[in-house]
Amino acid sequence: MNISKRLQTLRTTLSEKKLQAVLVSQPDNRYYLSGFSGSAGYLLITADSQLLATDFRYVEQVKQQAPDYRLFEIKGDMSKWLPEFVAGLGLKEMAFEAEDVTFDKYSRLKEILSPLGIELKPIISMVETIRAVKEPGEIALIERAVAVSDAAIEHIRTAAHPGMTELEVAWEIEKYMREHGSQAVPFEVIVAAGRNAALPHHQPSDYVIRAGEPIVIDIGAKCAGYVSDLTRTLCLGKADEQFRRIYDIVLKAQMAAEEKIVSGMIGHDADAIARTIIDTAGYADKFGHGLGHGLGLVVHEAPRVGSSSKDILANGMVFTVEPGIYLPEWGGVRIEDTVVLEHGKIRVLSASRK
Amino acid sequence: MNISKRLQTLRTTLSEKKLQAVLVSQPDNRYYLSGFSGSAGYLLITADSQLLATDFRYVEQVKQQAPDYRLFEIKGDMSKWLPEFVAGLGLKEMAFEAEDVTFDKYSRLKEILSPLGIELKPIISMVETIRAVKEPGEIALIERAVAVSDAAIEHIRTAAHPGMTELEVAWEIEKYMREHGSQAVPFEVIVAAGRNAALPHHQPSDYVIRAGEPIVIDIGAKCAGYVSDLTRTLCLGKADEQFRRIYDIVLKAQMAAEEKIVSGMIGHDADAIARTIIDTAGYADKFGHGLGHGLGLVVHEAPRVGSSSKDILANGMVFTVEPGIYLPEWGGVRIEDTVVLEHGKIRVLSASRK
Repeated sequence: MNISKRLQTLRTTLSEKKLQAVLVSQPDNRYYLSGFSGSAGYLLITADSQLLATDFRYVEQVKQQAPDYRLFEIKGDMSKWLPEFVAGLGLKEMAFEAEDVTFDKYSRLKEILSPLGIELKPIISMVETIRAVKEPGEIALIERAVAVSDAAIEHIRTAAHPGMTELEVAWEIEKYMREHGSQAVPFEVIVAAGRNAALPHHQPSDYVIRAGEPIVIDIGAKCAGYVSDLTRTLCLGKADEQFRRIYDIVLKAQMAAEEKIVSGMIGHDADAIARTIIDTAGYADKFGHGLGHGLGLVVHEAPRVGSSSKDILANGMVFTVEPGIYLPEWGGVRIEDTVVLEHGKIRVLSASRK
Repeated sequence: MNISKRLQTLRTTLSEKKLQAVLVSQPDNRYYLSGFSGSAGYLLITADSQLLATDFRYVEQVKQQAPDYRLFEIKGDMSKWLPEFVAGLGLKEMAFEAEDVTFDKYSRLKEILSPLGIELKPIISMVETIRAVKEPGEIALIERAVAVSDAAIEHIRTAAHPGMTELEVAWEIEKYMREHGSQAVPFEVIVAAGRNAALPHHQPSDYVIRAGEPIVIDIGAKCAGYVSDLTRTLCLGKADEQFRRIYDIVLKAQMAAEEKIVSGMIGHDADAIARTIIDTAGYADKFGHGLGHGLGLVVHEAPRVGSSSKDILANGMVFTVEPGIYLPEWGGVRIEDTVVLEHGKIRVLSASRK
């Protein structure tokens, strides 16, 4: 974790946007820019200084995790500590993360900062844009998480059998990941069998899995703060003709996307590679979500890779490629890999069989 | 879950505050008022109608979970669907949850609603205040979660032994709860041994637990959406004199609070009952957090029970009572029960030995 390099990148952005300072409140951004993993606190970053405000619970932790920052201990109400926090910095303005700061918090910030002559300026996705391009060390951690989820899918191929409920399969997978290197899973394991597989966000239930039906399994592991995201659609016993036909279309769409996505491409063009194949096969309205999404510290982050995305895909970005076809009353198929853009092309990190 | 009764209570509040409509965006409030458990959507509630807007992923789920609501399917950008959503309701104003809606979302809402002649009005804790007083059915679910965490602490008293790491103990507890009726745990299990026990929010580490030192274990289970919160401070092997002395002070403070808190009391007065005992024993600055917090759908909700709380404690409220003493370099002791106010007095739900 190269905090000083990250701060340098942020300061370049601040300078380009002619902003004097930014208040970072979003927890993952706070961690990314400081190394501090506690649940509460603010970073204040100017051209030549960086401060971290947090309360007594985290004072010792900040000293260990964020030595690059000047520590400020929060005591009492914001109207008390905030003026002291910004004192001496000569601020005329302060950017704030408008997608994180609630209207209530904004109102309180404004009430305190306006009388001090400090103007609040909303920013969108500034730190998120920097986070989207991963450092080699971050990719290595994501690869660790990918390996854990790959192993968990391999495990469940033999551990699952008809007669188990979705919840039993989900817990078997979660337990496996936790006992093979994962921290608390970044999202609840999805196991959707039979008709439930038609719902992309189905929550595992007491539904008893039968042989021959599609089972969408969507899982993520987390290692040293970084996550993976993996979906495989399994079938216990012999798959019928319908399953094989749908599966082949989704797989073809995914392989085409993984082959043809290149650096510099816009998110919606990447999405279109897979979508065209699914549309042409006659399932235009059965692929109701985007092709993928960035991941890293969290399971959904920049870039977006869907039909409305204008994000430019760049080397170092890590994201998912996950086309799907969902047929109400029958079920669904989704196949998802975690990939990284390197040297202009996609390298697929997920090694799980398809 | 009596949705119509909850809506009636909300409408009484709207009427008292002379508000025409409220947009509910906070996920737990959305669930509480509708029964819809999906991850995205808005409720719009007026004096005589209730609407639920969500996207294609959740349309089927809404039909099953929230039959009392008129379903509206979100398609495309907010500027497209929001005007249609509010059409025909004759709104001049719309309250919104200012502690949930981000500044960015507020700006977009305003941009769309202002031209329609609809004024946005921030509200604070409106639904949260209603949620604070539990229905009998909610208390029954909390009691189920309490029983699971009680059993997990009982289990770990025999399963833990010197030489295990904090992480191993934490996972043993989590696994036990998951395999004995708990959904995904509402917060990561805290196991803080030796000096780590001095940190109220310590994350379990590779620290190897030794005999004779304090081990603060803070856990919660979740059953049918409702949570419990329980802390016990254990000691493997023989406790020394220091441990027993600190433990007795904390226990005395907790028992006094549980005996003396009555309905109608203000949060800070409830806090003071325990705090006075700890202060008098000479540890005034070693109890650095509030006495407790409400819980229900989430592990921190109204009422607040700390030194700055003005919340009035009422029958039906469920909250924690958790005094602690934390001594840097040595460790700490915290003892926490989940309790409910009934017939003017506290009934302790947690049955775990102290």
